[in-house]
Amino acid sequence: MPEETVITKGLVERIGLKDSVFTISVNGEKNEEITDIPNHEVAVKMLLDKLTGFGIISSLDEIEGIGHRVVHGGEVFNESVLITDEVLEKIDELSELAPLHNPANLTGIQAFRNILPNVPAVAVFDTAFHQTMPESSFLYSLPYEYYEKYGIRKYGFHGTSHKYISERAAEMLGRPKEQLRLISCHLGNGASIAAIEGGKSIDTSMGFTPLAGVAMGTRSGNIDPALIPFIMEKTDSTADEVLNVLNKKSGILGVSGFSSDLRDIQDGVEAGNERAELALDVFANRIHKYIGSYASRMNGVDAIVFTAGIGENSLIVRERVLKGLEFMGVYWDPARNTTRGEETFLSYPHSPVKVMVIPTNEEVMIARDVLEKGDI
Amino acid sequence: MPEETVITKGLVERIGLKDSVFTISVNGEKNEEITDIPNHEVAVKMLLDKLTGFGIISSLDEIEGIGHRVVHGGEVFNESVLITDEVLEKIDELSELAPLHNPANLTGIQAFRNILPNVPAVAVFDTAFHQTMPESSFLYSLPYEYYEKYGIRKYGFHGTSHKYISERAAEMLGRPKEQLRLISCHLGNGASIAAIEGGKSIDTSMGFTPLAGVAMGTRSGNIDPALIPFIMEKTDSTADEVLNVLNKKSGILGVSGFSSDLRDIQDGVEAGNERAELALDVFANRIHKYIGSYASRMNGVDAIVFTAGIGENSLIVRERVLKGLEFMGVYWDPARNTTRGEETFLSYPHSPVKVMVIPTNEEVMIARDVLEKGDI
Repeated sequence: MPEETVITKGLVERIGLKDSVFTISVNGEKNEEITDIPNHEVAVKMLLDKLTGFGIISSLDEIEGIGHRVVHGGEVFNESVLITDEVLEKIDELSELAPLHNPANLTGIQAFRNILPNVPAVAVFDTAFHQTMPESSFLYSLPYEYYEKYGIRKYGFHGTSHKYISERAAEMLGRPKEQLRLISCHLGNGASIAAIEGGKSIDTSMGFTPLAGVAMGTRSGNIDPALIPFIMEKTDSTADEVLNVLNKKSGILGVSGFSSDLRDIQDGVEAGNERAELALDVFANRIHKYIGSYASRMNGVDAIVFTAGIGENSLIVRERVLKGLEFMGVYWDPARNTTRGEETFLSYPHSPVKVMVIPTNEEVMIARDVLEKGDI
Repeated sequence: MPEETVITKGLVERIGLKDSVFTISVNGEKNEEITDIPNHEVAVKMLLDKLTGFGIISSLDEIEGIGHRVVHGGEVFNESVLITDEVLEKIDELSELAPLHNPANLTGIQAFRNILPNVPAVAVFDTAFHQTMPESSFLYSLPYEYYEKYGIRKYGFHGTSHKYISERAAEMLGRPKEQLRLISCHLGNGASIAAIEGGKSIDTSMGFTPLAGVAMGTRSGNIDPALIPFIMEKTDSTADEVLNVLNKKSGILGVSGFSSDLRDIQDGVEAGNERAELALDVFANRIHKYIGSYASRMNGVDAIVFTAGIGENSLIVRERVLKGLEFMGVYWDPARNTTRGEETFLSYPHSPVKVMVIPTNEEVMIARDVLEKGDI
């Protein structure tokens, strides 16, 4: 930084389990080591050893800032923040809203603090970008005291990605983001759509949790809420068990019956599998309808952007989602819908609404915020 | 019939309770009698006595057909049907999908059968009109076997009203319904939106039950499904208790905190009550977004129609819902948005998308079906 050059990237998987996997790229080549990594602190220690060991950096002193992605910032954090004891406490308090994620995020932050206590660390929240939503978007039509007492509202997720998309789309369009109405479709194994007006999120499909909104790999998205007690009774399950089905056995996996991976579904569609066709149809249909819905929220849209694994790579999803949006000025060229993982315009130059593919880059957003908030 | 002249109308309330209320209009004047009516058969007997007693008909022989509104026809009934023993059995089987309504509907049917066993009776289902929805609309992204085993899918309701609207709108537009794309907004204490293409429902906002979709008087509409277990834990409630809150204490009542009646909300808005403003905003916002969503489903729309109590009468709701739809060709004239309960065009004559108010008439649809299916 500030050149935004990636000098390495990596991943630690199966921390705390047998045969953990440590992956790091050195001069663009992937190095993998399988060993038992009992906890996050050991993982961080190993990472730092490898960084110097492989000569990616010559000494730990070169590390001037650390960025942490934190899932839930609640209504407390509407932007990234330098991590202090007070910040840690607040992230901990917000664990109630993200019991699986915030504690894990804290573990990672603590591990770095123990080893590099004097390096500024910045927390970047997945919810922060959506804190600009107006009350009419974020409030559920539930008893109002649920919002006041329990923080029940729409928070939205994938904020860092949607923010990146809104900024990069503005650059590619050569227009200030303040003048743009964008619909950002972050379609990965988790998927969310955001309506971004003047650079600010004004609505998004995920809700109180990342279960809500469109159908996803294994998540149901929105369903009739009355189905939960009905399914509980029919399958003799608890509410948590049903929630588990909605999170892990629904979506594309549930409808297709064989895979949550859209690549398998595409193969199935090509092989004439009806349930694969149906899963694709349901998946695309929901996204298509969100586009109409968010266009109406902004009285039109200047650009629709596809990003994340499926958005960047699935030609058939983009095709199905875009089909039949001419009424709102979307004219796209099937001949352009051939690229994967590349910045592309799918729309014709004359199309009033532009359609774009932009590979997301949450890491650069985190690095930028570390630079800024870490005062480096 | 077939002149479609209303010769009387009435209502029996509080059957089985003390001080039941029997209301019937005679030559346009309302007659009310308060008396104990222990069951539906007594109510039907009383109705028939009054019909002849007031000289509305001269003898019971004049009754050539009886129409019954039945809430749930499941996937069995995609149109109205002459009631036979077999039909009764099927309606009874479908009680599982509508445990509060179908048994009550059967009670009413049985009461008439006991007293007028030889008069043809026709069942008209609230779900039937939506049976044309394609699988991509009606299927939830849940495990597919839930659909196969338990009938879990979107059924949709208010079908008789949406069908009436689609036919009347076509007449008013002077175009065959087969060529029209309509969005019908049935906004009463219960509210649902339907996308109607070529005279057929292709999507609707209510779901497996009438709880789903937009916010309503006391119903939440769609929420993040993960909220149910969360609310259960926070309020120490069972799933059924939470469902009861979603059905009876949410929606406009929940957000405003003081009333489920939109007239009270309007008064509140005029008096500067913030929570009333918020309730109105949430209510209108969801409907507005459904309009965009359903326009995208049909690649545009020819007419948007408002009906039912709120749709026919609330100027402020129509105004808020319609605001900001110019991007899709909706140009409406605030000066026309002054009528209540009357057939009106709100759109300018030059507007590509027409906006209309049409008072619904489920009774005439039922009468027509009785005439046809009863072979009268």
